[in-house]
Amino acid sequence: MGSSPRIAVDAMGGDEGLAVMLAGVARARRQNDGMRFLLVGDEAQIRAGLEKHPNLSAASEILHAPEVVTATDKPSQAIRRAKTTSMGLAIDAVKRGDAAAAVSAGNTGALMAMSKLSLRTMPGIDRPALAALLPSLGENDLVMLDLGANTECDAQNLIQFAVMGAAYARTVLELDRPRVALLNIGTEELKGTDEIKDASTALRTATYLPMQFNGFIEGDRISRGEVDVIVCDGFSGNIALKTAEGTARFVGDLLKRAFTSSLRSKIGFLISRPATELLKHHLDPNNHNGAVFLGLNGLVVKSHGSANEVGVANAIGVAAKMVRADLARRITEDLDNFKAHIGPEVAEA
Amino acid sequence: MGSSPRIAVDAMGGDEGLAVMLAGVARARRQNDGMRFLLVGDEAQIRAGLEKHPNLSAASEILHAPEVVTATDKPSQAIRRAKTTSMGLAIDAVKRGDAAAAVSAGNTGALMAMSKLSLRTMPGIDRPALAALLPSLGENDLVMLDLGANTECDAQNLIQFAVMGAAYARTVLELDRPRVALLNIGTEELKGTDEIKDASTALRTATYLPMQFNGFIEGDRISRGEVDVIVCDGFSGNIALKTAEGTARFVGDLLKRAFTSSLRSKIGFLISRPATELLKHHLDPNNHNGAVFLGLNGLVVKSHGSANEVGVANAIGVAAKMVRADLARRITEDLDNFKAHIGPEVAEA
Repeated sequence: MGSSPRIAVDAMGGDEGLAVMLAGVARARRQNDGMRFLLVGDEAQIRAGLEKHPNLSAASEILHAPEVVTATDKPSQAIRRAKTTSMGLAIDAVKRGDAAAAVSAGNTGALMAMSKLSLRTMPGIDRPALAALLPSLGENDLVMLDLGANTECDAQNLIQFAVMGAAYARTVLELDRPRVALLNIGTEELKGTDEIKDASTALRTATYLPMQFNGFIEGDRISRGEVDVIVCDGFSGNIALKTAEGTARFVGDLLKRAFTSSLRSKIGFLISRPATELLKHHLDPNNHNGAVFLGLNGLVVKSHGSANEVGVANAIGVAAKMVRADLARRITEDLDNFKAHIGPEVAEA
Repeated sequence: MGSSPRIAVDAMGGDEGLAVMLAGVARARRQNDGMRFLLVGDEAQIRAGLEKHPNLSAASEILHAPEVVTATDKPSQAIRRAKTTSMGLAIDAVKRGDAAAAVSAGNTGALMAMSKLSLRTMPGIDRPALAALLPSLGENDLVMLDLGANTECDAQNLIQFAVMGAAYARTVLELDRPRVALLNIGTEELKGTDEIKDASTALRTATYLPMQFNGFIEGDRISRGEVDVIVCDGFSGNIALKTAEGTARFVGDLLKRAFTSSLRSKIGFLISRPATELLKHHLDPNNHNGAVFLGLNGLVVKSHGSANEVGVANAIGVAAKMVRADLARRITEDLDNFKAHIGPEVAEA
C-alpha cells in the first residue's frame, strides 16, 4: 500500500443507499488528503454513481460484488457468502492486505461474525470488542467498549478492552494519556462483580501503560467529561448505550411536545431555534459516527445504518485515523508491555 | 391497626433535614384521608417541628430514636444500631406490626441491609428487589426492578421480580394487566444471557398470571410507554437507571448552554419558559419518588435523599397505596398461582 493507504468501503451497506455512501466517501476524500478507496459492490451501479464525484473517482478502484448482506440476514447465513457479498469482500480486501481498513454500514451482527472469522483476533486478545464514540460535556468525545460483541466477560477480557480502548482514544481523540474507568454500580472498591473488581485491581497497578486508570464510574456520570474511555462487558455496554440514546430521544420528544403546546411556546421555540439547532448538532449521531471492532488482525469500522453523508465521512475519517496511527501496533505494544510487567502467567490466568 | 393504618417515617433521614420531611408528611396527610403516622427520630426536634403542622400532629405519634444512620455509614455498621437509630426503629415498627409500612430518605445500602435482616424475605421469594417508578411517554409511569439490590440474578430471581413488579404495577399504577418485559440487548429469542432466556421461556407460558408478558425490551425503548414493568438484574438495572438520569441531565445541561449562548436564544427561552417548565415538571424525580423493596415481610419505601416536600409526600403516597391494596397478599397469591401451574419443583429449580 506504500505511502498512500487504501480503505475498502462496502458501498452497498446502509439503509440510505449507494448514493449517500458515495457522497460520504467523496466528502471523506476531500477531508483526508491522499487517501485512496476500494469501492466494493455492484460495479455498474458504482460506476454510474461515481460520475457525480470525479474527485473520488480518481482516487478509487471498484471491486465487483454480485451480492449484498441484508439487514435481516442472520450472521450464520452471511458468513457463508463471504466471497460474494460486498461486505464479505471488503473485509477480505483487508485480510489480503489489499486495503488497510474496511468500512461498512451494513448489518452489525453479520459484520462482526464475518470480521472475526476472516481476520481472527490479535495475539494476546481473547475477544474483540465493539467500541464507539459518545458525546460528552468535556472537550472531546469519549470511547466506550464493549457495546455488545460479548454478552459476558471475565477480568482478562475487561483488562484487554481497557488497553485497546486507551490505544483507540490516543489515536482517534489524540490524547497522550486517556483517563480510563470501569463502568460499575458504585465507586467504592467493594462494589460490583468479581470480574470488575479483579480487572480494577490489575489496572490500578499498571501505571506504566499510557493511560490513567480512574477506577469505577457510574452510569449517571458517563457523559460528564470526567473520563475518556469507559470499559464494560457487552451486555451492560449495550444497555447503557441504548438507554442513553433512548433517554436523549425521550427528552427531545418531551421538549417537542412542550414547544408545540401553545402559540407562545411555538414563538419562543422559533426565536431560540439557532440554540436548539446547536444542541441537535451536538447530539446528532452522525457527528460521532464510526464504531470500531477492536482486537482483530485488521481494522473494521461500522458506520450507522442510517448515517447521512456527514456520518459516512466521519466513519471513514475514523478508519483513516486508525490507519495513519497504526492502531494495531499500538495495541500490541501496550499488551506486550502489560504482560512483561505482570508476567504472562498472570496476564493469561 | 384496624381501619386506620399507620406509616412509620424515619424523620431524620434525607439530606434536606427534618423540616422538609415533616412538611412532606403533612402534605401526604392531606392527600391520604385517615392515614396515621409514627414519626421516628429525636423526640424534642420532632415535637418542635410539628408545631407548624397541627393537622399532622393530630394524626401522629412520636417514637424517640437517640441515633441517626448517616450517608457514610456502611450497611454493616448500621445494622448493629438497628434498635437505636431512627431508620432501624422505623423498620422495627413494621416488624412488630406497629406500622403497616416504613418510609426513609436515608442511606439506601443501610436501609436495604436493615430491612432484609429485620423483615426477612417472603415465602417463595429468594431475594428482595428494589423497584422504582420512571417517567415514560405513555399514560402512566413504568415500574423497573431490580435497581441494585442484587448484582447477579438467576432465572428464578428474574421470574420472581416479574411477579412482584406486576403486582406492584397493579397496585400503584392501578393497571389490571400490566405489560411486563425483560431488559435485554436484542428482542430476538436467541439474545442475552441464559438466565434471561430461561426466565423468558417460563414467563411466556404463565398466561394465567394477571400480567401480559411482552418478551424482551432494549434500552432505547425503556421510556416509550410500550410496557409497564421492566425486569432486570440489579447490575443492568442500576446502569440503565443511572444512565437515563445522567443523559437527561446531560441534555438539560446542553440545552442550558444553548439557551444562554446568545441574547436571541435567551429571549426565546424566556418566552417558551412555560413549556420548558412543563418538561422540567415531567422529568422532576420528585414526581416519581418512592422506590420500594419488594419481597420482604413488610413494606419499606425509600425516598430520594434530596427529595423536597412534594417528593416526600409522593413516597408516602406510594406506601399508602401499597398498604391499602395489601400488596404483600397479592404477591403471595400470584406466586402460589405460578407454582401451582408449573409445579413447585420447577419453580424452585
